[in-house]
Amino acid sequence: MPGEVGGQTVDFGGQWVGASQNLLRQQAIELDVPMYRQYTSGNSLVNIDGKVHAYSSTPKLPFLSTLELGLTLHRWKRDMQTLPVGAPWLAENALEWDAMSIEVWLDKHVDTTAARDFARLVTSAITCTESLHVSYLFFLECLRQGGGLEAMMAVEGGAQQDKFLGGAWQIPKRMAERLDGCIVLNAAVSAIEQNANGVRVTCAQGAFEASYAIVTAPPPLASRIRFVPPLPVKRAGLLQRMQMGAVIKMHVAYPTPFWRRHGLNGSVASVGHHLGFVFDQSPEDESIGVLVGLIEGNHALELSGLSQEARREHIVADLVHYFGDEAAAPLDYADYDWTTDEWALGGYASHMPPG
Amino acid sequence: MPGEVGGQTVDFGGQWVGASQNLLRQQAIELDVPMYRQYTSGNSLVNIDGKVHAYSSTPKLPFLSTLELGLTLHRWKRDMQTLPVGAPWLAENALEWDAMSIEVWLDKHVDTTAARDFARLVTSAITCTESLHVSYLFFLECLRQGGGLEAMMAVEGGAQQDKFLGGAWQIPKRMAERLDGCIVLNAAVSAIEQNANGVRVTCAQGAFEASYAIVTAPPPLASRIRFVPPLPVKRAGLLQRMQMGAVIKMHVAYPTPFWRRHGLNGSVASVGHHLGFVFDQSPEDESIGVLVGLIEGNHALELSGLSQEARREHIVADLVHYFGDEAAAPLDYADYDWTTDEWALGGYASHMPPG
Repeated sequence: MPGEVGGQTVDFGGQWVGASQNLLRQQAIELDVPMYRQYTSGNSLVNIDGKVHAYSSTPKLPFLSTLELGLTLHRWKRDMQTLPVGAPWLAENALEWDAMSIEVWLDKHVDTTAARDFARLVTSAITCTESLHVSYLFFLECLRQGGGLEAMMAVEGGAQQDKFLGGAWQIPKRMAERLDGCIVLNAAVSAIEQNANGVRVTCAQGAFEASYAIVTAPPPLASRIRFVPPLPVKRAGLLQRMQMGAVIKMHVAYPTPFWRRHGLNGSVASVGHHLGFVFDQSPEDESIGVLVGLIEGNHALELSGLSQEARREHIVADLVHYFGDEAAAPLDYADYDWTTDEWALGGYASHMPPG
Repeated sequence: MPGEVGGQTVDFGGQWVGASQNLLRQQAIELDVPMYRQYTSGNSLVNIDGKVHAYSSTPKLPFLSTLELGLTLHRWKRDMQTLPVGAPWLAENALEWDAMSIEVWLDKHVDTTAARDFARLVTSAITCTESLHVSYLFFLECLRQGGGLEAMMAVEGGAQQDKFLGGAWQIPKRMAERLDGCIVLNAAVSAIEQNANGVRVTCAQGAFEASYAIVTAPPPLASRIRFVPPLPVKRAGLLQRMQMGAVIKMHVAYPTPFWRRHGLNGSVASVGHHLGFVFDQSPEDESIGVLVGLIEGNHALELSGLSQEARREHIVADLVHYFGDEAAAPLDYADYDWTTDEWALGGYASHMPPG
């Protein structure tokens, strides 16, 4: 979904394409949507314990916390590698890991505050919710499917390596144009009936028949559909149980990408403030400066109740904390609250609770 | 919902009325549906470790297990009493208790196998699911709302004290008759819109306007309804997250209530077999013998995949194990699988996962 800030078209939805997302990269080339690199020249910022530090490769935490965070990431990787592909429930420790939330795991294995805070930040970036709501086994399976934590969090060679010139939203848009006349919009599906001949999909506008139906709706929306015959009990139970995370995505425009002058690449990872992650989203000609940011989990639920104006104040205060006074007077601000989108019911991931 | 077994009308849905359920008792009197006592003369049976024991007041477990079970029930009561009425999340240990499943709690506090098995049986009777899927805090709140475990599990003076002559289903049926012409059936609600003037409720048959709407659907079905404006994020998230338990209710008829001759009251609590709980449901004139039983949690999910004929075989084998060979040749068998009921999606309770 496109948005606009300071005259630039931006993505309110998914935005990055990873180094190994070959199908999407191929699709983009075929549809003539050019890719370009995420800006990375200079240092990143980390905000922890209320203090902002610049770093080039590894966030500077207190010494013991750094050691322990390293150990934590190593343990996650080791545990993740024990999951059988396609059947995480068959792992040797599956029952034990599924019984505990990520938070309970952290309680058991991580002692230093900074390492724990940083581990929480990482897990909320992946699940869009708080570590106490998510099964540790489910989290490991997310890491496994994402190719491991390093790949998921990295820019170069990782999941945030490239972006689409003009926005990722152009890809589904152009795919849809090719299917002109075959797409029915604004037609929420109320029932899918299956018999020996195929499927019958019912919505307010009428019914459609086909050989197969592919349901891509997130679990809480898929479970609103009436299936005839009913879904298998375990599948229906899974859909009932998976909840969407909470995320608000925001863009803010400045006259220039002023952070670049200070040797910063615009990226921030932040514990304890509403705005958890920031990246540089400025146009390549530097005609203006744009930052894109994500507010996740409980922070999103808190800000979701406010007006966009009040949210902007919170976010600008966070940006001033990260980047200094130059961040105080943006040209423009826009955000999209996925938690109130009735056809998403949250985002960008859904999760399985412990148990 | 009424069913029929051996010519007797029985309840496939709720059946008992507790000693303290005054509103329901009053309603039954007003609607002229007589109540009568659950049959309790004689001993109950408990099946544990594959062996069946008769007992009069307390199930006979191994000595240490009995002590530990007593301690467990005491701890539940003590923990339950710390929950502030209407706001369990304000209890001193709320975060800790909500982070763990009942199973994790049992792992920590109960050592003997029989005590643990029996505690699991009790929790599945209350939640209709396995102890590893349920938040310990949620479980304590269920106990608190039910007036404590003793009242919930008891017959005399407790929740299973009385039944309705002819079945509990007659109460809603007679209430509905009084509202003849005001009830629209077979009309699944797709949307509820609220504005300053009231609500507008939409279903396939049209739209209805009213001052208020009361939604009594279980959480997974309530979350299929499109609310305009959307529900508050936290409320929608709660509906997304609560899953229904699994239960199959079965009735079986014999030529006589033969167990009464052996000094048994027909009640069974059983660990490890599919049929977890049994009660006597014979007509007062003893013209035939009827047992009613509940299959819960994973046992229900397993048997849900089978034909009713195959289920009957499993259940009769369980009854032979509990009551001996006289149970091998029933006159009639009927069951209702709530897990495949598309307008219940399970039963009889929904639960909150840990976290």
